[in-house]
This record gives sequence, C-alpha cells and structure tokens, in this order.
Amino acid sequence: MNKTVTFGEVVMRLSPEGNKKISQSNRLEFYFGGTEMNVGASLANFGNEVKHITCVSDDIVGAAAISTMKKYGIDTGNVIKRNAPLGLYFLEVGAVMRSSTIAYNRAHSAFSEITPDMVDWEKVLDGCDWFHWTGITPAISEGAYQTLREGLKTAREKGITVTADPTYRKDLWNYGGDARKILAEMLGYSTIFIGGVNEINEILGTDHTGDKDGFVKAAKELLERIPSLTRVFDKVRHGGNASAQKISARAWNGKEYLRTEELEISHVVDRIGTGDAYAGGLIYGLQHFDDQKAIAFANAACALKHTIEGDVNLVSADEVMQVVEGHISGRIKR
Amino acid sequence: MNKTVTFGEVVMRLSPEGNKKISQSNRLEFYFGGTEMNVGASLANFGNEVKHITCVSDDIVGAAAISTMKKYGIDTGNVIKRNAPLGLYFLEVGAVMRSSTIAYNRAHSAFSEITPDMVDWEKVLDGCDWFHWTGITPAISEGAYQTLREGLKTAREKGITVTADPTYRKDLWNYGGDARKILAEMLGYSTIFIGGVNEINEILGTDHTGDKDGFVKAAKELLERIPSLTRVFDKVRHGGNASAQKISARAWNGKEYLRTEELEISHVVDRIGTGDAYAGGLIYGLQHFDDQKAIAFANAACALKHTIEGDVNLVSADEVMQVVEGHISGRIKR
Amino acid sequence: MNKTVTFGEVVMRLSPEGNKKISQSNRLEFYFGGTEMNVGASLANFGNEVKHITCVSDDIVGAAAISTMKKYGIDTGNVIKRNAPLGLYFLEVGAVMRSSTIAYNRAHSAFSEITPDMVDWEKVLDGCDWFHWTGITPAISEGAYQTLREGLKTAREKGITVTADPTYRKDLWNYGGDARKILAEMLGYSTIFIGGVNEINEILGTDHTGDKDGFVKAAKELLERIPSLTRVFDKVRHGGNASAQKISARAWNGKEYLRTEELEISHVVDRIGTGDAYAGGLIYGLQHFDDQKAIAFANAACALKHTIEGDVNLVSADEVMQVVEGHISGRIKR
Amino acid sequence: MNKTVTFGEVVMRLSPEGNKKISQSNRLEFYFGGTEMNVGASLANFGNEVKHITCVSDDIVGAAAISTMKKYGIDTGNVIKRNAPLGLYFLEVGAVMRSSTIAYNRAHSAFSEITPDMVDWEKVLDGCDWFHWTGITPAISEGAYQTLREGLKTAREKGITVTADPTYRKDLWNYGGDARKILAEMLGYSTIFIGGVNEINEILGTDHTGDKDGFVKAAKELLERIPSLTRVFDKVRHGGNASAQKISARAWNGKEYLRTEELEISHVVDRIGTGDAYAGGLIYGLQHFDDQKAIAFANAACALKHTIEGDVNLVSADEVMQVVEGHISGRIKR
Amino acid sequence: MNKTVTFGEVVMRLSPEGNKKISQSNRLEFYFGGTEMNVGASLANFGNEVKHITCVSDDIVGAAAISTMKKYGIDTGNVIKRNAPLGLYFLEVGAVMRSSTIAYNRAHSAFSEITPDMVDWEKVLDGCDWFHWTGITPAISEGAYQTLREGLKTAREKGITVTADPTYRKDLWNYGGDARKILAEMLGYSTIFIGGVNEINEILGTDHTGDKDGFVKAAKELLERIPSLTRVFDKVRHGGNASAQKISARAWNGKEYLRTEELEISHVVDRIGTGDAYAGGLIYGLQHFDDQKAIAFANAACALKHTIEGDVNLVSADEVMQVVEGHISGRIKR
Amino acid sequence: MNKTVTFGEVVMRLSPEGNKKISQSNRLEFYFGGTEMNVGASLANFGNEVKHITCVSDDIVGAAAISTMKKYGIDTGNVIKRNAPLGLYFLEVGAVMRSSTIAYNRAHSAFSEITPDMVDWEKVLDGCDWFHWTGITPAISEGAYQTLREGLKTAREKGITVTADPTYRKDLWNYGGDARKILAEMLGYSTIFIGGVNEINEILGTDHTGDKDGFVKAAKELLERIPSLTRVFDKVRHGGNASAQKISARAWNGKEYLRTEELEISHVVDRIGTGDAYAGGLIYGLQHFDDQKAIAFANAACALKHTIEGDVNLVSADEVMQVVEGHISGRIKR
Repeated sequence: MNKTVTFGEVVMRLSPEGNKKISQSNRLEFYFGGTEMNVGASLANFGNEVKHITCVSDDIVGAAAISTMKKYGIDTGNVIKRNAPLGLYFLEVGAVMRSSTIAYNRAHSAFSEITPDMVDWEKVLDGCDWFHWTGITPAISEGAYQTLREGLKTAREKGITVTADPTYRKDLWNYGGDARKILAEMLGYSTIFIGGVNEINEILGTDHTGDKDGFVKAAKELLERIPSLTRVFDKVRHGGNASAQKISARAWNGKEYLRTEELEISHVVDRIGTGDAYAGGLIYGLQHFDDQKAIAFANAACALKHTIEGDVNLVSADEVMQVVEGHISGRIKR
Repeated sequence: MNKTVTFGEVVMRLSPEGNKKISQSNRLEFYFGGTEMNVGASLANFGNEVKHITCVSDDIVGAAAISTMKKYGIDTGNVIKRNAPLGLYFLEVGAVMRSSTIAYNRAHSAFSEITPDMVDWEKVLDGCDWFHWTGITPAISEGAYQTLREGLKTAREKGITVTADPTYRKDLWNYGGDARKILAEMLGYSTIFIGGVNEINEILGTDHTGDKDGFVKAAKELLERIPSLTRVFDKVRHGGNASAQKISARAWNGKEYLRTEELEISHVVDRIGTGDAYAGGLIYGLQHFDDQKAIAFANAACALKHTIEGDVNLVSADEVMQVVEGHISGRIKR
Repeated sequence: MNKTVTFGEVVMRLSPEGNKKISQSNRLEFYFGGTEMNVGASLANFGNEVKHITCVSDDIVGAAAISTMKKYGIDTGNVIKRNAPLGLYFLEVGAVMRSSTIAYNRAHSAFSEITPDMVDWEKVLDGCDWFHWTGITPAISEGAYQTLREGLKTAREKGITVTADPTYRKDLWNYGGDARKILAEMLGYSTIFIGGVNEINEILGTDHTGDKDGFVKAAKELLERIPSLTRVFDKVRHGGNASAQKISARAWNGKEYLRTEELEISHVVDRIGTGDAYAGGLIYGLQHFDDQKAIAFANAACALKHTIEGDVNLVSADEVMQVVEGHISGRIKR
Repeated sequence: MNKTVTFGEVVMRLSPEGNKKISQSNRLEFYFGGTEMNVGASLANFGNEVKHITCVSDDIVGAAAISTMKKYGIDTGNVIKRNAPLGLYFLEVGAVMRSSTIAYNRAHSAFSEITPDMVDWEKVLDGCDWFHWTGITPAISEGAYQTLREGLKTAREKGITVTADPTYRKDLWNYGGDARKILAEMLGYSTIFIGGVNEINEILGTDHTGDKDGFVKAAKELLERIPSLTRVFDKVRHGGNASAQKISARAWNGKEYLRTEELEISHVVDRIGTGDAYAGGLIYGLQHFDDQKAIAFANAACALKHTIEGDVNLVSADEVMQVVEGHISGRIKR
Repeated sequence: MNKTVTFGEVVMRLSPEGNKKISQSNRLEFYFGGTEMNVGASLANFGNEVKHITCVSDDIVGAAAISTMKKYGIDTGNVIKRNAPLGLYFLEVGAVMRSSTIAYNRAHSAFSEITPDMVDWEKVLDGCDWFHWTGITPAISEGAYQTLREGLKTAREKGITVTADPTYRKDLWNYGGDARKILAEMLGYSTIFIGGVNEINEILGTDHTGDKDGFVKAAKELLERIPSLTRVFDKVRHGGNASAQKISARAWNGKEYLRTEELEISHVVDRIGTGDAYAGGLIYGLQHFDDQKAIAFANAACALKHTIEGDVNLVSADEVMQVVEGHISGRIKR
Repeated sequence: MNKTVTFGEVVMRLSPEGNKKISQSNRLEFYFGGTEMNVGASLANFGNEVKHITCVSDDIVGAAAISTMKKYGIDTGNVIKRNAPLGLYFLEVGAVMRSSTIAYNRAHSAFSEITPDMVDWEKVLDGCDWFHWTGITPAISEGAYQTLREGLKTAREKGITVTADPTYRKDLWNYGGDARKILAEMLGYSTIFIGGVNEINEILGTDHTGDKDGFVKAAKELLERIPSLTRVFDKVRHGGNASAQKISARAWNGKEYLRTEELEISHVVDRIGTGDAYAGGLIYGLQHFDDQKAIAFANAACALKHTIEGDVNLVSADEVMQVVEGHISGRIKR
C-alpha cells in the first residue's frame, strides 16, 4: 500500500442549490475541498494511506473540515489549528454558456498563517513514498511557500517521488512572491510534472503551441531546464460548455508521446475538482501501471469526477478500471 | 373498463438527493415501487381498475406503502400484513458512464413469507380480465412461487389474459428453486410474453442472437415450446449511457415482425421502472389497439417514464398518445 | 440611464421540485413573475431605472411580491393593493418530450380589478423614455385594457418609445373584449413590434408563412397597416424539446432583413420567461446599439435565461455581451 | 363499521418552512385539507368507511387533491371536477404571542360553483349512517348552501345521524345569504350540535356567558328552539398561546353536564385542524362509547392533533385511547 | 414619516438546519444582518424611510446583501463596494442549556476597509431626522471609527437625534483603538443611550449594581458625565435558557424611572437580533409615543423578534401594538 | 488518554422531517447509531482513543456507516464486512403525549451473522483500558452473544475495566438465548453496572422498588450476587413527556448513596441516544473524577444530548463541565 502525503489549504465551498444565484435562495450547500486534499482523498479512496498536512481554523468550521477529512479516511494527526478563519469561496453554478462564478474569501485564512516551524516534515514524511503539491500553495503566503519548500527538501532527501501540479493562478499571488521563480524552484525538488503547455510557458517564459508538436517541444524543454523532472502529464478539454465536456490525456515520458481516447461527459454533474481527480488518478496509475495505462486511468478518473457531486472524486479504483476497459454505458449495478 | 390484477412485492427505494452518495448526505428520498405494482399503478393511471396483491410489513412502513398504493388508485383490499419488514433497497444514482449502484435488503421481507393460503385467488380474480406477473416473484421464496402458481392456475381456469415478464435476476434465486424450470412452468399458464432474446435464451437454454432474425427465431421457438403463449413483445435500448437513451420496441405476434420508430431520451430524469412502464403501456395498448399501435404505445410510455421521478409512470393515456402521434417537442401546456 | 415603465400583472409560480408532479411532493418552489415585470427586472439588472405598475393582493402574498420587485431594484412606489388574491399558477416541469403543464388561478386576481383611475399615468411616465406592454394585459379584464390604453395614450403624447409584445393567448380573453381589435388599437400607440408571423397573422387576419420571405412580407404589411410601428423583432426556435433548444433572432427594421447566428442550449435549466428575456435584451440593445447588435444581444439574453432558475433573467449586460462576443464555453470565472 | 359521508370544500394550504414569512423563503410546504374532509379522514383513520363529497379543479391541483383523499382511504368516487381553481390559502405560522396569518384565495373556487344537481344524494347516502357538515359550506355560495340543504334533507329522510359544526366565519358570507337564518335552517335537519356558547349566541341571537352555567343555559335554549338537536358538545381552550395550549371538552346531553380533565399541549406542532380532530374524535366516540367517554375521546383526539403536522389527525383509535387512559408520557414505542 | 440613517457592517450568517452542528449537515441556511442594518430594516418595516450606509464586497455575495436590503425597503444608494470579502459568521444553534456557538470571519471584511472619504455625510444626512449607531462599528477598524465620527459630527451639526447602542464586544477591538475612550467620545455626539448597567460600567469605569437603584444611579451618572445624553433605555432578561426567555424594559428619562411588564417567550424561534429589535422598537416608540409607551413598544418588538427567523424583526407596527395592548394569545388571524 | 473498546451493532435510523409520519413526506433524514457506538463516539469526542468492533454490510450503506464512524474519530480498522444488510429502523418522531414510533429491520442484519472467529480480541484489546458492552448485543444472535463472551473473557484476563449497560429488550431475544442467564453470565465478567432497579429486578428475578431505599437494596443485592461488580450507576427520569424531561442520576458505589441535582430539559430536540450519552459521560467521569462528580458529569452529558440531533452526543467535555458547574442559561458563545 502506498503512503502518500499531500500538503495544502482546505477550503469550504458554498453554493446555492442547482443553478440558483445567491440572491434566489436562503440556503447553501457546502463541501470541504482544496486541490491537494482532493488528490489525497481520491488516493485514500483508491487504497493509499494518506496524510494531509494543512492548517485550519480553531473553531466549529475547522472542526467540521477535520471531520470531513477523517470521513475520507485521511490521517489528520498533523493538522494544525489557528485562531483565524478557514478559507472559503462562494460558487454560483452556471450551465451551458453561462459560466460558474466564484467569490473567494481566503486571503487571511488560517492556512495563510502557516510557517515552516509548524510542520515536522521529518516525522510527517517518515515511511512515505509519495508527495504531492500544487502551485496554489506557494501563492498563498510567504509562510506557505517556505513550508512547502521545507517539505519538498525533506522529500527530496528521502528520495520520495514528488508530483507537481504547478497551476498558476495569478490572482492568488498577492504577498509579493515571484511566481515564476518560486514555481521553478519548487519544480527543482519534484519528479513528475502534471500540467500542459500553458503551465510550461508561464514557468519557462516560452511560447510553445498547444498542439501535439508544441506539447512535445514544451515538455522536452521543461525536462531539459529542470532536470529533476522526468515526465510530463497533461489533460486536454475539447470544446464543450459548462454542461458537457470531452476530455483526453496525453504525456511525454522522456521517450515517447502517449495519448488516450477521448471520453465524452454528455451531462456534467459537477466540474469542480476534475483536475484534482486527474492528478489523483494519475498518481494511482503511476503507482500501479505503465505510463500508457496510467494516463488512461487518470483520464477515466477525471471523467468520472464530472459525475460526482462535491470536490472529491468518490469513486473506487474498480469503478475507474471499468471505464478504462470501455464500460461506459452506465448500466445499473444491482 | 379493464379489471387487472397484479401480484408481487412492494419495496421501498431510498436514495440520496441528485447524484450524491449516501456518505455525502443526511437525507434520502424514497419511493414505494415494485415491478408488478408499478405496472398496476401505470394501468390505474390509464383507467384500469387495478387490484394489487402483496404482503407488507405490519408497521409504519407498510402502512405508508399501502397509503401510496391507495394514492395511485389501486385497490388494496387484499393486501396482507406480516410482522416482518418491508423489502427495501438503497440507490446511488449514477450519471453518464457512472453506473447507479443498488444495495438490497429484501431477503427476509414480509413478502418472502407469503404462502398460498393467504390469498383467496378465486375471490381476487373474480370479474377480472387481466393478470400480470414477473420473474421477480417466483425468485423470492418458495411461498411466493407457490402463491403465484395458485394465482396463475386460477387465472387460467377463468380464461383471464396473463402477461408474463419473466425477467431473470440470478441474484434473487436463493431459496433453492430451479429458475429455468419454474419460469417455464409459470409461462405455461401465460398468454403473452414480455421479454427479449436474453430472457428466451435463459429460459429455453438456447443461444439465439439479438438481431431481428435472432429475435424472430427465438420468439417462434418460444411459442412452439410453450404453446399457451401467443405473442412476444420486446423493447430495445440503443447505446446510450446513464443520462441519455434511445429506445424502440419490437414484437412477434405469431404472424409478423413488428417494430417502432426509435425515441430519443436526451436527458434521463429517472431510469428505474422504465421496463415496467413498457409493460404497463403494452397491456393498455393490447387492451385498446392492434399490435402495431400497442407497441408504439408501449414504447412511448417507456420513453415518458424516463422523464418521471420515482418508480411509477405517472402519465395519462392522453400524454402517451401525444408522443405516439409524434408530438415530442415538449412545448408547455397552458 | 434609461428610465423605463412596465405595466402588467405579477403572478406567483408554484412548482414541485425537479420534475416531480404535485402529488409526488409536499413542497413547492415559488417565484414571482409576470411577463412585463420580468422585462422590467431584466432591464433593472442591465442598469435601467424601472418602475413597474401593477396591482397586487393586500395580504402576505402581495407583500412578498412587492419585496421581490424591490429586491430586483424595481421602483414599487406606484403599486396598487386590492383586497383580492394575487394571480398564481402551478407548474409541473416536463423534460424531453414530456410537456410542462400549467394550471392557472388568475381569473379573479387583484390585477383583474384594476381600473384607469387607479394609475396617475402623467406622474408615472413623467421623465421616462420607454414603455413596454404585452398582449397579456388587455386580455385580463376590461379594466386592465382601459388602464393600458390610458397609459399608452399618455406615453404617446409624451413621445415615449413604446415596445409592444402582443402575445395572443386565446384562453385569457374571457371578459368579452375583441382581441384582434383591441390589440390593433394598442399597437396604434406603439413604436416597436416584438413578435413573429403568428402574431402578425392573428392580428391582421393574414396568413403569411413562417420562412424568411413570409416574415418580411408580414412585417412590411404590419408596418403599412399600423404606421406608428417602425420595426419588427422576432425570435425563432429551431426544433428541440423541453430539455434542449436552439434559438436565433431576426428583424425587419423597415429597410433590411437582419438575423443572428443560432445559439444552442444543450441543457435547459428553466424555460419560463425566455421570451421576456428576449424582450428585455432587445430593449437594452435598442437603447445602446444598432439593430443588428441589438438582436444579437436579445438572442444572447434569451439563451442565457434558459440557464437561470425562475422567471427573471438574472444576468448582467456584461454577461450577455460575453455571449454576443462568442464566449460560450462556460469556463469558471474565478 | 360505520359508513360516514362528509361534504365540503377541499382547500390547499401553503406555508413557508418553520416560522418563516413568505418573503423569507423560496419554497412552501403544502397540505390538502378542509374542515369536513379533515373530519372524514380522521374517521377513515379510526376505521369508518368514508365518502367525501366535494368539487375540485379539473387540473393538476385537483388531481393531487383527489390523490390525497385516496391516500387517506376516503372514497372519492363522487368527487366533482370543474374548470375553476381549487380554493387555497397561504399561512405564515406564528409562535408564542405572534399570531399565524392566513391569506385566502377561495372566493371563486371550483367548490363555489357546486349546485344541487351535481350530487345524487340518494345514491351517495344509500347505506350510510352518519352525515357531518359545518358552517363553512353554506357560507361559500348559494349553490353550496342549496347542495348542503338537499343533502341534509335526504339524510333526514333516511334517518341518518347528522352532526353539525356550525362554525360562523363572518368573512366568508359574501354571496348574500343570511347566515343566522340559514344556519338555523340547517340545524333543523341535524341531530348533534358541535359548538359552544359563542356559536349558540350567534345563531340564536342570545348572550349567554361562557362559564358552566352559561353553557348549560345556552345548550338548553338551543335544544328547545331547534328540537331536532338532542345534544351539545363543546371544547374549551384555557389560555395558552400559539406554541402551548390547554384544552378540555364539555357537553350537555339533554340530561346532564359532562366535562373532561384538562390536557396540556406544552409544545404545539400544528394548530390547524384541531377543531376538526375534536369533531372526528367525538363522532367516533359517539359511535362506540357513552357520552362521557365520547368527550374524553374527542378531547384526546384534539390534543393529539396538536402534535401532528398538516390538517388531518393522522392517529389511530388506539393511540387516542392510550391518551384517554392517561398515558401521556410520550415514551418511545419500539 | 421619519427619515433615519443607520451605519454599520452587514454580515452574512450561516447556520445548519435546526439544532445541527456543521459536521452533521451538508447545507447551511443564511441571512444577511448586522446590528445597525437590523435596526434600519425594522424601522423600514414600521414605516420609516431608511438609508443604510455600509461597505460590501464587490462580488456575488455583496450583490446578494444589497438585494436583501432593497427587499427590506432600505435605500442602498450610498452603499460602497470594495474588493474584499463580506464579513460573515457561522452559527450552530443551541437549545435549552446548550449555548449557540459562533465562529466569526470578519476581521478583513470589506467594511473594515471603509474610510471617511468614502461617505458624503452631508448628502447622506440631508433631510434626515434620526441617526443610529452601535459600539460594534468603532471596534472594527480605525477607518470605521473615523467614518462613524464624521457621521456623528455631521448629525450633531444638523441637530439630528442620535441613538447610541454602545454594546461593548471586547473580542472585536483588535486594531488598537481604546474602546472606552472612543465609545465615550462617540456618546458625546449622541442624544439617547440604549444600554444597561454593564455598558455604563464599562464605559465610565464604574461598578453600579444591576438592580433598580443601581440602574438609576448609573443612568444619572452617565447623563451627568456625558451631557449630550438625555435618556437611558435598558432591556432586562429574567433567567431563561436558549429555548425560553422572559424580558422586560426599563428607562431613566432624566426625571423618572419607568418599566414595563414582563413578557414571556415560552418557545424561542430565533434569538439573534432581539437586541436590535428592541432598539428598532424603541426608536419608533420615541418617534410616536411618550417614554412609557415607547419602552412598552420596544419590549413588545423585542419579544416578537424571538418568534421570527433571521436577523431582522419582520413585524409591522400594528403587530407590535397588538402585543402592547395585551393580545398575547397568538390566535390565528384569518 | 484512555483507550476504549466498544462492541455492538451499528444501525441506520431513518425518520421523516420534523414530526411528520412516513406517509406525509418523500424524504427521510438518517443517522448511523447503535447504543455501543454512540458511547464510543461520545468518548472519542471527550478525547478517548476508541475502537469500535462491529460487522456492517459490504455495500454502499455499510461504507457510509464506516465513513460516519471515521468522522467521529473512531478507529474502524477492526470492522467486519458481510454480504448481508445493515440493520436499520424507521422512526416517526412524536411530541408531547404522542409517542415516537419505531419499526425495526434488523433481525437478519450483517451484525447478526458475527461469530467469535471474526474478532481477534487479543489484538483488539491490546493496550486498552476500558471495554463497554450493552444488553442489546447478546440479544441479537447466538454468534453475537458468543463473540461478546469471548471479548469479555479476554478483557477480564487483561484486567480491563468493563462497564455493562444490560438494557433488557424482550423483543430482541428471538434466537432462543435465555436472557436472564446470559446477562448474568456477562455481568460476571464486568466491573461497573449501568442500570436501575428495573434492570436489576429483571436479571436477578427480584422485585425491589424504584425509590431510594429500593435502589440501594437492589444495588447491594446485585453486588453481592455478582461479585465482579463494584458499583451501580442509575439515571432517573422525572415525569415529562416527549417534548420535555427532567433527569437526575444516582449511584451506589458500594459504600454510599450518591445523587445529583435534577436538570430540566424544557424543549427536547432529540431523545434517541440519551441513555448512551449518560453512559459515555459516566465512563469519562469515572476516568477523571470521583464518583459524585462522575454522576454529575454523566447527568449533564445526558441532558445535553437531549439538545443534539442524531444518535451521538456531539458535545465536548468542556461543554459538559459548563453544565456541571451550573451554566445552564444557554447564552450565545461568540
């Protein structure tokens, strides 16, 4: 059984029922999520032993966030509590050509107050074989960045596989950190890159195109310039709208270009967390299969997440394998 | 007005809201259904006088089940009550390529305790002209099988038309009964067969193919080997997934092969009970129209059920006729 | 900022959750709407100053209706209260080929008791530059017709632009008024016609065809016979069902035939009020753009309404412009 | 088994959740009720065979009303349908010193259009032994009054026991009928009077006091002036507020004054229909017990209704007897 | 009609249904409130023209907050929008001896960023005759304090009546302001003090007792030391728990000690905002009645708020007067 | 930190909203509970390390039950899964004098199939210092009884403190076990008795009275006849109904009679699990305090549970201590 550590902010998502706007309702559904925790929960579902390292509010909201992680089978023994609120966001869910809209309230969250001394990375990573981080974390605060760096250093020293999903969200980088420089530094401690041409261009300052050739060139340049990285895994959305999507996955594993069939999600249930489902599926895939099957597993996991409510991909490895094997008719299982 | 008797277990269906999993919610929607009762309720909606014979728990759940049948206009005067729980199942509703999942709790239900002495078939069937049964009932228990047999015998003696929907669910046959033999015996008391090549192959031990030719051959063989049967009515699903379906109907009426246009259900609301809606539509169709129009009515009834929540096809004969006549634009009726 | 007056009944819409029938639930969602108020609310959302003139019940329901209008930013200073109930309707929401069904309860509503002396049109219209009416209003009662006529006369005297959406609903004309004559009379006070060939044929007693040529001929004849009218704006639905639609808009502006691209709504959230959204979008478009862009704006507004729950098109002018400019991928806005 | 006929309007009750006001919510809970139907449903629960005679809307709302009556086990075979809306009312539920507020919409209901020719009283009352009416019905319309009169005459001819609950609601008498005269006339066909000093004073034009002596004097005078009446049954509320009540029952049976212990309802769940629960309990009591026990049963039934949601007293005769026998600790029944 | 200005933060309250804890549910009910806005909304309900001055988030949450204020009839023309989140809090509702628990997230709210230059007090207060503030506002930030001071100065110059509710919440004073000094300064611009012995002791540094004598002494000392103040209005809670309360009001109007009867709230629906309901009732009372009747009105308003869900006292002046006049039986109003 | 093991069935509770009956709703709230798991969860909340040993269904329901235990912080590493349904019950919640009604469906549950070989008690109890069982478990099946016996033997050998709550539920003893004999045998492995005179009389066949003297005599006799037991802890309900209760606790600790003050629960939120809350509070009390304070803690814990929804007492030790110290005013905690 793989032992995985994820590190990142847990946030609360609050949204009116269905496609309502906040002003049309008097109640909000909520979920606890967070890109790294979502990956961790997905891996726990697949059978990994998972520790999530985070910092939550020391109040009834933080307590509920911890409960939720426990429910997903995540080890919360290293979760820190601070007298500051849990980050959260409001979501009005769009449909068809109407975009979903998000309003964040996370700038002064408990997690943003984290500092390296709060996490004993030696102990946390002891006996673990996988570490996953995303570009959200070093964007949040100097402390979050430093804490991540310490974790990555320790992971590196221990020879732990490190997957990096360096999503670049410009709006989050408000504390003064140099996004490009910091992300490149963090990648220097990482093994596997989860991202596409956009992310590579942003980090390297290049302008590769999004087609197959551009992707391969970008991936090659990335592996050259950041030698710790050995493979690049990307997912692709083909057209679609807020209610329907087509997705596939592709990779450059240092030797060859790989890609999957396209999966169609004709009726999207929930789009939040589909990228994290891809990452979770990919990690599980890399833990158990060759690269080709790993991206098929990742793509199928991502597809299934579109049919699951909430942030976390509550499907089993078996359910994903069914889709990998082409069972996409959705017949009732009695 | 036709007077119809249906016989079979009533079960409670419990499912979280929308596409949630049980662990994501704290409430469950419920419906009372059961394949034969669904057919009966559908026929009551279409104007039949319907008696449903069943055995429910003698508690607050059974009382609610009886209330529901009354609501549908079903005569519950012959419903038996036992000090055993009502059968039930939990359903997590899938979407697109994600299958719905069902967990049953019916093995020791009140209905499984039924025995022939509990039903006065002479009285129940007096004045009735139609009897409908399915393959679920003789699978449940020796008592259910024996009780069904008594009912069928009596119906046969009274010259009542008997429709058989001998769905074969392997998982249910746990009491030791020989499914193939028993189903064949029950068909010997029946007039009309509702099912396709799979069902025929299972009962006859044949291996006809699912295409038109295979269907006709299978139907012919069935009618030869079980002479009480005169017609075979089948429904066909064309591809699709948990959220979208295309359906049509076909028949062998002893003389000719009949089939309908395909109807597309682009957005499935609820797939449970669509087979029962087909059976209900077919019976009404056979009561009022020729075979060709009957299968068109059955197919349209089945299509409409995909847009109705719950187990029962809550549409009127008029609404079905609208679809038969090609009105499928779904314009608002003011 | 444009100052617009709308006049018409506010009704309450009551419908079971999802696609349920009333008998399947014990609760109803409700919205306050009304074709003219919907247009007004849409324009308020786009930045117009809007007064809505109506008559509501002097009870807890009327109070809630007024609250809702205030919430939308509509000036309710001229709303009349009567000791008669608010009009309402029940809606069972269909899907795919199943039509939605409506049951009205508005024949003796507070609004039907309105009479011209209850509205001081001089004061109401003072400083305003737009007036919008629909064919629903003069259908409701003699008093409603007379009150509308007074309003239109006053608007005409003040040189206010008048948009007319003379929807003809035969079932509503129960008080004895001659629909065709009255609608023609009202159009004589109007500037812009919102409607298509069906409406023109009904009012003029003609039989133009629905294709491009027929539309242009019908529009020309309308402008000739009712000279106050200068332009005709129509919207077109292309096939579809209760769950999916394709729409476009077209116009005859006295000089040329204009039309928009088709927009596809692959997953309809709520179809009620989409015509009002078109009218609201059109008025805003005419206030700010040339005719071609105006119909593009109207068509996009109408498309977006299909993704919004309730009667009112709760989108901003910015969101509509995004769709006009081709952003229809529905990406999340963070 | 007693066979009872009730006659009166069925109305829909719509109220926001909990103690909310309409403007605070976007959904309403609903129930179908109506004072006479409530009594009928209560008696059906107790084991009576009950027919309810009424007139509902011929639409999706009327259909749901009929479904509900069927659910309660009421024979709806004589329900009339009209192309007019079902009567309804909105309810904001108060608490403690805040009154519940009701807004009616029933003046032009389907029921108000009833006329004597629509009911075949001979057939309806054939084989029945009890008829119950209230003062609401003759208040609704001339047709309702005349239809009731025909029913009462027929009941009288057949020697059927007639219970009268001549509640006087001034606001309902809008069609020009003389309330006092009509109620007195209807009482002339009745056997048992359910009401207190207020009702007697209103009908006789007297001014008896509400204490024991006043009650006895009023009852005696009533029995003298309307000789068909033989007994008077009253219920008394002792102080309390919208959330807590104390109740008892008293009677003058022509010979002696009877009264019950007081029952305290410390936490009111739903106050609507408690008077009907008293009437239903009383009728059952009179069918099975002596007068003293009958009022104890009526009082207990009324008390229990305060703990039941909705209009109808969904308790069994057994549950009422438990309270009559002093079991008021509310222990869980496993 | 009085014209009142209120100034203060609007916050969102989020709580699980009923008495659940956050970890027990997946949905939260929400309300927009804020002590000063609650007073404003209460006064708008009573018929005042009310402007509320505040600063909300420039996002979907702030938009909904503004919608809500509009719904209450509050003029939001002077509301400021900032690119910072709306303040909010989570509430788990207690019962009996279990306290409700609150978790705040307001330290970095949009309102905390307000500065005096954002409000044109001259224009805002023009033509107004009442200004209400509370001790929450100067506690939030230096900017909030300075903005309040400017408002109070302007109100003073214009001779506007100023009511002060200087609630002292220690936990909120985090920006370094000296609570006691600032509150005293603000009171120096105020006319009427709403508060009791605790508040006076905190501000003056005294230790008066809570009984009648202590209250009178404290009030006298307050009026001496802060001569702009002329009257002191207090409310008193007598025992009780989270589910039941008894309240009364008392005052020192510079000449005599006044007090009201006690009102019992036997079943508390919602305790949040009851103090604001008292303040709103008091202001309306002072606008229309003598001091004795004013405190009776305030006490009744406060009592009624305990029966209303949400933060705002959604009752009319008529409903309050009913309670003042002793109608506390909560009979249904038809 | 104490390490506690609990052993027993986990069942699902399903109930309609509020005080509705099943036939009045279309949805059910659910909770996972079970008397021993409730105690375990309570202790986990108070800070114990808790393992719960049970057997759940190997399906979506069992998975959700495990999730819930994890959420409560319970170690589920030793939970067994079987291909049989999870036990469950339906609950209609009463009020005032109306009893709650329960319908069980647990006779053939997964737990009933447990056998001693499925639990490795040596490993489970290793390092633990407390074991808690109740009389429900040996009533369920021979296997459950035998498994419990093995656990108790092992606990005894390891010198672990054993609390016994030998609730006697006659209806559950259906497999043929001799309740009195088996319970006495199990008590022979136990240290502390949680129960009162009724339980003692049932087990010993005595007829002690329920007053203080009777309790002391019964307790003494129990301690004499079952020498492993050293103390007896009882809770007492004083009158009350389904909506209000008064409770206190008493004990015989082998030397002296102890008792607590009475606590009044004026508004019961949820009565299920209050006995388990008492047991959980008592165990924590005995772990940390002397006997007198332990029963005060147990009584306060029990009182608080009446204000918590669901089966589990979701309060902290701090919240209980507040009540022990007399803070019962339920003031809001900000």
